[in-house]
Amino acid sequence: MSNFEVETWSGLSSGGITAVPGFKVAGVHCGIRKNRDKRDLALIVADRMCSAAAVYTTNKVKGAPLLLTMEHLSKSQGKARAILCNSGNANTCAPDGLAAATTMVNAAAKELDINPSDIIVNSTGVIGVKLPVDAILAGMPKLVKSLSRDNIPAAEAIMTTDTFSKSWAAQFELGGKTVTLGGIAKGSGMIHPNMATMLSFLATDCAITPEMLQKALKASTIISYNQVSVDGDTSTNDMCAILASGTAGNPLIDTENEDYNNFLTALNAINLKLAKEIARDGEGATKLLICRVNGAKTFEDASKLSKSIIGSSLVKSAMFGADANWGRVLCAMGYSGASFDPMRVDVSFSSAMGDLDVCKQSTGLDFDESMAKGILSEKEVTIEINLSDGNQAAEAYGCDLTYDYVRINGDYRT
Amino acid sequence: MSNFEVETWSGLSSGGITAVPGFKVAGVHCGIRKNRDKRDLALIVADRMCSAAAVYTTNKVKGAPLLLTMEHLSKSQGKARAILCNSGNANTCAPDGLAAATTMVNAAAKELDINPSDIIVNSTGVIGVKLPVDAILAGMPKLVKSLSRDNIPAAEAIMTTDTFSKSWAAQFELGGKTVTLGGIAKGSGMIHPNMATMLSFLATDCAITPEMLQKALKASTIISYNQVSVDGDTSTNDMCAILASGTAGNPLIDTENEDYNNFLTALNAINLKLAKEIARDGEGATKLLICRVNGAKTFEDASKLSKSIIGSSLVKSAMFGADANWGRVLCAMGYSGASFDPMRVDVSFSSAMGDLDVCKQSTGLDFDESMAKGILSEKEVTIEINLSDGNQAAEAYGCDLTYDYVRINGDYRT
Repeated sequence: MSNFEVETWSGLSSGGITAVPGFKVAGVHCGIRKNRDKRDLALIVADRMCSAAAVYTTNKVKGAPLLLTMEHLSKSQGKARAILCNSGNANTCAPDGLAAATTMVNAAAKELDINPSDIIVNSTGVIGVKLPVDAILAGMPKLVKSLSRDNIPAAEAIMTTDTFSKSWAAQFELGGKTVTLGGIAKGSGMIHPNMATMLSFLATDCAITPEMLQKALKASTIISYNQVSVDGDTSTNDMCAILASGTAGNPLIDTENEDYNNFLTALNAINLKLAKEIARDGEGATKLLICRVNGAKTFEDASKLSKSIIGSSLVKSAMFGADANWGRVLCAMGYSGASFDPMRVDVSFSSAMGDLDVCKQSTGLDFDESMAKGILSEKEVTIEINLSDGNQAAEAYGCDLTYDYVRINGDYRT
Repeated sequence: MSNFEVETWSGLSSGGITAVPGFKVAGVHCGIRKNRDKRDLALIVADRMCSAAAVYTTNKVKGAPLLLTMEHLSKSQGKARAILCNSGNANTCAPDGLAAATTMVNAAAKELDINPSDIIVNSTGVIGVKLPVDAILAGMPKLVKSLSRDNIPAAEAIMTTDTFSKSWAAQFELGGKTVTLGGIAKGSGMIHPNMATMLSFLATDCAITPEMLQKALKASTIISYNQVSVDGDTSTNDMCAILASGTAGNPLIDTENEDYNNFLTALNAINLKLAKEIARDGEGATKLLICRVNGAKTFEDASKLSKSIIGSSLVKSAMFGADANWGRVLCAMGYSGASFDPMRVDVSFSSAMGDLDVCKQSTGLDFDESMAKGILSEKEVTIEINLSDGNQAAEAYGCDLTYDYVRINGDYRT
């Protein structure tokens, strides 16, 4: 099943983590952020032990909470009950980072009466500044007391300069049982700069082993979050984590059977929705860019090409200016490292305003510039490439490069 | 000899191609560009056959003139007499590009009474638009008639939105003979968008075989132009080419002897100067950024790290805002793919206003924010990294990311 088919899958619904029975969430302001109206501490708790899986940033410089989470999931052999996350400070390259992460986890564990190693933890915010652990400790009782079946406070508490919170849910049948899957995510933003962290937290009542959960999560992030680029900077704190409680009562998924595939489809559908929302809400963005590459020899080639195009500063600037500058698209393909025939590339632009072919067999076509301008002025624009080289395809998701991106990231931290 | 030592080498002087005896250049307006005050056709001619060498863009999509030049240098076994280049149109992904390049070369060859295959040719400008060959043919007699010992017209005729022309020369002794080396270059810019072409044309009277000339040119571009990033987009038409006439009378360099090394030092010195000018004059740039990485295990690691930092949109935006945001520097190192110990990184910022350590052993230091702001507000800023991992070093050159970059590249083409 391709990611294009996943997107039209019918099981999606609004709602997030709390669409899943047995999960409560909370989000409060504890004082890491100066603005008292901004929540900065989030908690997700399952009413029983869950299968757990996580994927992490590939950045060699990893935040202290990620290191602690890896240790926890290794010690518990893929089991966990809660996810704890603050915003406003990344606890990365900061003094005593691991001790600070441990302290906040211990406080939550005590308040929840669970093992510290059953907690997945992360932080998002400024790099290199000491985590204000005292604020987190002071806020912990309030956080745990406010646990409820309302998804919004947690979705908001992990936001940085995201302009909207991101939540999706899905329901589907496995072995005659209804299974629910829900997730929340955040994209890039900042109070202080240094934040471009991508976070996604998911919950499900599906019965699935930690091994199969990890396998599904990894497969799903490859076609969703890993295909997003806002500015080419891979954060130190990226994480996608999932808890699976098993209360749906479906036959335990312990191999790559049909149930596994159905679960993966739902997971892909949610992750793609959240990934696109992260791209659409990229720093300073005025539009969502989708780059679809068809006709590639391998998925890897299609993926490399789509990501190279979506990551090009020149392409992104042109899209901001609604300029049908397809030469930059070919240029970005050429330096992508992917295998393709540079003389046989077709390019078209599309949006709600229509479709327009601009390049055929690597040679420019005469086209209506005002029609191009109209198509590219929409809020969601697709750059479509055809390679006539094979039958593999991939999509990447990004946004335009705008004055506001420079303003947001050029502003002084204080 | 490191590139830091090369920069303090004493043989450099102002002047360009025409500092070298036996070379004439010309630059005229032939009508490719609309603005009649902008020269758009350049020619460099030696008074005899030269050893010739060139390095080209690694982009898989290569401009038609590059393909023709490769064919010429292969046919002539590394000999050439002239370099022909227009600005305003890249002759890339354009209808009948190879025929157009051949036609312009044939016209120059006829006018100069030399073989077409003795000409190195390139074009820089918009991609995907048919080259106006008629304008070039009409301008050719005037171009050849205006050949002179004045370097400026050619240096100007290859410019696109460069804000200043770039020329350097050097003199040094080989075997008791004075050898001269001169060069001109252009960086990124546009009339129409799509232009981020880097061009560098060099001339020398040194006696050197084509093989040694190619070897020296390749080695030199690795530490100079290949360490420049303005926006991460590798053009389809990048080229660095050199002609060596041999009239200096030095013992022919046909092996990697001491003379070769002395020649390479001079070549490095000029190429580094031109490369830095390209970075300083990057689209929309307000400052030159130099990133020096010391103490790496290998040159490759140092090079990858320095280029990753200089290419990060978040680092570049922070430098525009004079924000000492060293967390982004560590982040960019972490995703560079280079080998280093992420827990043992020192970072400092320096400029004419002073030096400031901001991170020691990957942990933030308390520093004076107003002093940091002062240092980073200068026109030339160095980001210095120490890894304590070995004794290899590299430098990369770039510029800040500004509103003007977005404006220049977001503007509609017409």
